[in-house]
Amino acid sequence: MMGKISTNVSRTVQTKLVLPPDTNHLGTIFGGVVLSYIDEIAAIAAMKHSNKVVVTASIDTVNFLSSAKVGDILTLEAVVISTGRTSMEVYVKVECHQFETGETKLTTTSLLTMVAIDSEGKPVPVPGVIPETEKEIQLLKEATIRREKRLLENKWSNEKI
Amino acid sequence: MMGKISTNVSRTVQTKLVLPPDTNHLGTIFGGVVLSYIDEIAAIAAMKHSNKVVVTASIDTVNFLSSAKVGDILTLEAVVISTGRTSMEVYVKVECHQFETGETKLTTTSLLTMVAIDSEGKPVPVPGVIPETEKEIQLLKEATIRREKRLLENKWSNEKI
Amino acid sequence: MMGKISTNVSRTVQTKLVLPPDTNHLGTIFGGVVLSYIDEIAAIAAMKHSNKVVVTASIDTVNFLSSAKVGDILTLEAVVISTGRTSMEVYVKVECHQFETGETKLTTTSLLTMVAIDSEGKPVPVPGVIPETEKEIQLLKEATIRREKRLLENKWSNEKI
Amino acid sequence: MMGKISTNVSRTVQTKLVLPPDTNHLGTIFGGVVLSYIDEIAAIAAMKHSNKVVVTASIDTVNFLSSAKVGDILTLEAVVISTGRTSMEVYVKVECHQFETGETKLTTTSLLTMVAIDSEGKPVPVPGVIPETEKEIQLLKEATIRREKRLLENKWSNEKI
Amino acid sequence: MMGKISTNVSRTVQTKLVLPPDTNHLGTIFGGVVLSYIDEIAAIAAMKHSNKVVVTASIDTVNFLSSAKVGDILTLEAVVISTGRTSMEVYVKVECHQFETGETKLTTTSLLTMVAIDSEGKPVPVPGVIPETEKEIQLLKEATIRREKRLLENKWSNEKI
Amino acid sequence: MMGKISTNVSRTVQTKLVLPPDTNHLGTIFGGVVLSYIDEIAAIAAMKHSNKVVVTASIDTVNFLSSAKVGDILTLEAVVISTGRTSMEVYVKVECHQFETGETKLTTTSLLTMVAIDSEGKPVPVPGVIPETEKEIQLLKEATIRREKRLLENKWSNEKI
Ligand SMILES: CC(C)(COP(=O)(O)OP(=O)(O)OC[C@H]1O[C@@H](n2cnc3c(N)ncnc32)[C@H](O)[C@@H]1OP(=O)(O)O)[C@@H](O)C(=O)NCCC(=O)NCCS
Ligand SMILES: CC(C)(COP(=O)(O)OP(=O)(O)OC[C@H]1O[C@@H](n2cnc3c(N)ncnc32)[C@H](O)[C@@H]1OP(=O)(O)O)[C@@H](O)C(=O)NCCC(=O)NCCS
Ligand SMILES: CC(C)(COP(=O)(O)OP(=O)(O)OC[C@H]1O[C@@H](n2cnc3c(N)ncnc32)[C@H](O)[C@@H]1OP(=O)(O)O)[C@@H](O)C(=O)NCCC(=O)NCCS
Ligand SMILES: CC(C)(COP(=O)(O)OP(=O)(O)OC[C@H]1O[C@@H](n2cnc3c(N)ncnc32)[C@H](O)[C@@H]1OP(=O)(O)O)[C@@H](O)C(=O)NCCC(=O)NCCS
Repeated sequence: MMGKISTNVSRTVQTKLVLPPDTNHLGTIFGGVVLSYIDEIAAIAAMKHSNKVVVTASIDTVNFLSSAKVGDILTLEAVVISTGRTSMEVYVKVECHQFETGETKLTTTSLLTMVAIDSEGKPVPVPGVIPETEKEIQLLKEATIRREKRLLENKWSNEKI
Repeated sequence: MMGKISTNVSRTVQTKLVLPPDTNHLGTIFGGVVLSYIDEIAAIAAMKHSNKVVVTASIDTVNFLSSAKVGDILTLEAVVISTGRTSMEVYVKVECHQFETGETKLTTTSLLTMVAIDSEGKPVPVPGVIPETEKEIQLLKEATIRREKRLLENKWSNEKI
Repeated sequence: MMGKISTNVSRTVQTKLVLPPDTNHLGTIFGGVVLSYIDEIAAIAAMKHSNKVVVTASIDTVNFLSSAKVGDILTLEAVVISTGRTSMEVYVKVECHQFETGETKLTTTSLLTMVAIDSEGKPVPVPGVIPETEKEIQLLKEATIRREKRLLENKWSNEKI
Repeated sequence: MMGKISTNVSRTVQTKLVLPPDTNHLGTIFGGVVLSYIDEIAAIAAMKHSNKVVVTASIDTVNFLSSAKVGDILTLEAVVISTGRTSMEVYVKVECHQFETGETKLTTTSLLTMVAIDSEGKPVPVPGVIPETEKEIQLLKEATIRREKRLLENKWSNEKI
Repeated sequence: MMGKISTNVSRTVQTKLVLPPDTNHLGTIFGGVVLSYIDEIAAIAAMKHSNKVVVTASIDTVNFLSSAKVGDILTLEAVVISTGRTSMEVYVKVECHQFETGETKLTTTSLLTMVAIDSEGKPVPVPGVIPETEKEIQLLKEATIRREKRLLENKWSNEKI
Repeated sequence: MMGKISTNVSRTVQTKLVLPPDTNHLGTIFGGVVLSYIDEIAAIAAMKHSNKVVVTASIDTVNFLSSAKVGDILTLEAVVISTGRTSMEVYVKVECHQFETGETKLTTTSLLTMVAIDSEGKPVPVPGVIPETEKEIQLLKEATIRREKRLLENKWSNEKI
């Protein structure tokens, strides 16, 4: 059986300067840029946890709570907070340090499922996770509820669209 | 009062060739690349509908049902399917034409909420939408249910994380 | 002998948002950006027609009839309109939806020759084409004249430069 | 009246390393990448000649005589060889130094028309040109013939497509 | 007089996945890619310290002690370790987590000088720095020696080249 | 024994147009962009000299003497000026043609050490160099002094940081 790994192994930080090509006419960042940053850091966290190549199976609903402008600094943090047999649930938090006001605002939080794969693209087992903070313990505890909710949603979305 | 606009105005098609920088070691496309394509085409559809600059307010859960490899061709279709006062709900469908097998597979479907803004970043009203296909009529009909579901989810996620 | 394939197979649409990095100081798109969009969509259309990797053999004279600015939307359409043994002639039309005025203008039309190749880079046969619209029938009819014109031009250019 | 400027002012050299994202599966460079390099160097040469912002009015037929692979080195040379009132004709030559064989091959030559513009996008006058090499003198001499040929072509293409 | 700011304010972490376009034929990262990551993180650290736009004045000699390959993960850490009137000295450390072996190796350490500027590009005063770790205290102590060494070097290099 | 090669073989010129994504809010180029241009042209010069794949072993201190803005033209020149057994010392000069003033200013000069490697990443011998200009003769003569200085520095930096 595979051992368990501390969240300290996968915990990853990223800092991004918002540049003109990341933004529209008004200098507001594109949602797609933030989404690809979220996916990139989640993949890095999952690779660190599993020492395997990973693919994104899903990303839960993302709400953009505040905007970022050219010159702002985005900080992203990611950590693997729960695991299945071959899948890892990654929690990502994005904050924006607004240059003009000096304030730091929450941009969004996000949960992704990454699956470890071998060189043929087949899912492979991953170690379990040992949470280190209060919040990580809480997030791990609720993982089963979220998983069931996802399966339900998945069913709903497949029927409707 | 603002008139209504046919879905034929916003309907947008995009074709993308999967290139090495879009993929990991195994030549599998990053989820973040697909997410940023989805956001880009949704923004274009919403701009065509509203003739305004738009920002992404949210993207509903995205499940990646099948993968894409270097050399595959992704086809994206987007259409504004319902509107609020300043927001537009955009439906995006992504298919992958797999080069090796010649098959076309569904990669994912997605629903995004885009908001029209003025040059100060303030939300501005958008015209309503006239659906043109069976599916669009169906999607428009269920918009209110989805909206309530989103509000509920949003509450849930703000409590938990 | 190889069968013939409808233009519906290769017909491809692309929509591009003009972003700051695509433009000069004055916010006007670089010709090179449009040229690389034209080549990309022509390659995709030719890959769809032939199910082979393709290379660009030539692009006929391109006249840029009107400009595009940051925030404008470019729409490109491509279709394989005639074939030789291993080469495909692709017709590309580029229109610009100007954001400020709401107008749509023709940016340029273009004809490219793409050649299907195998993994050693050797030209390989491609199926013929069945035109579906009035214009496609016309363009196919005149293909032989264009081909002779090109050979002549080619000779001229090799002598002179 | 504006003076004349030596071709030594506009003469520009560019060296590019062919990288994986510039190529297809087989490691062969995309035509669109070469076309955008050609446009970029032509714009730089025309900016040096006119000290103005420039836009691409047209590019004459481009034939790709030989290919370039990952790791090859492309060398581009550009020079303004003739001028109208506001337009400049730029000659671009592209050679490929093939890494494996050590050979240098001609990839293509090309003629572009660049137009100098002011901050409102209106064409503005440019100085004439003083050719410095045998070939430049020859190319300048034939400029009028090419210009007439282009007008004819232009007419032809507008009628047909 | 301006106050002093803890190194905790400027301390910045970055994690980068090495991708194919960052590498040569053999999958080894380009030095230029690492250099631009170093400059980016140093700029972010200096912006956080000064709350101003910054430009790079100089980067001290960089030795690349070990290489990084496609799929490796680079971790960068930056901190402002000493200040002049308008300049900030930033220390950057780059480590590479090698995917195949699971080892982490030092890639390089680097010292850059960033200068805070106003909207006309004129240098503006920055707060001093309060070091928080043993190493930061040491690095701050030696700042004057390094500064004199730089001035000497600068003189040497201006004479010779 | 390997022969010697003229500096005419490796001498390389590059011209770059400064574009918005290369710059900060104020339109000033990032140091990291210039550093990656310097590394790119040094690699091309070393590849031309050695006909081998090369990696960057080190870059000597770089001082940015003047800035470049959006629309400026950077000209880079590189040449291999001395060689060891497997290493090549490359001299790079960067000038900026400032669009507004019409002036050309020195941006920086730089010395890099590139090492030729085989497909396993092992250093391989390179030919010696025959200097062609006064300056190249001078730079070659002083190569041994610089090499010893580097070893000393290297020792210093390894001890301190
Ligand atoms: C993710 C993927 C590998 C799963 O393949 P599969 O054949 O369904 O494999 P399995 O049924 O064995 O599932 C493997 C794991 O993925 C999880 N999973 C599958 N689909 C999922 C989804 N939509 N959301 C969350 N988890 C999912 C399963 O629950 C299982 O987890 P577990 O091993 O921890 O119990 C497959 O759907 C795929 O390749 N998708 C595309 C991924 C991709 O390329 N993303 C980039 C953008 S397209
Ligand atoms: C295009 C290319 C494969 C043709 O190779 P070739 O040895 O001339 O092969 P062939 O003589 O068998 O010609 C193959 C087909 O290409 C066509 N062709 C060749 N050069 C052409 C040109 N300049 N313009 C249009 N068609 C051309 C031929 O007419 C022939 O068509 P057909 O089979 O339908 O009758 C070769 O010139 C090449 O590799 N060029 C570089 C392509 C490239 O890499 N482009 C990207 C930018 S460099
Ligand atoms: C090029 C452009 C400025 C010409 O504008 P115009 O209103 O036709 O202006 P004019 O009639 O005064 O022509 C200006 C010059 O351009 C030349 N020109 C115009 N169209 C041309 C074409 N298709 N090919 C070559 N030269 C052309 C004219 O001959 C004239 O040259 P001259 O002053 O040396 O005699 C205009 O067509 C344009 O903006 N096109 C788009 C350019 C662009 O943005 N390119 C990037 C990709 S879309
Ligand atoms: C450069 C590198 C190949 C040297 O490997 P090594 O095991 O030290 O090999 P050697 O001792 O045989 O040295 C090879 C040559 O490199 C030179 N060299 C090594 N480190 C150097 C440095 N920091 N600065 C200048 N030259 C250096 C040696 O002097 C020797 O030169 P010579 O053959 O002309 O006498 C190795 O340090 C490396 O791979 N570094 C990372 C390079 C890289 O990937 N850069 C991109 C960004 S990380």
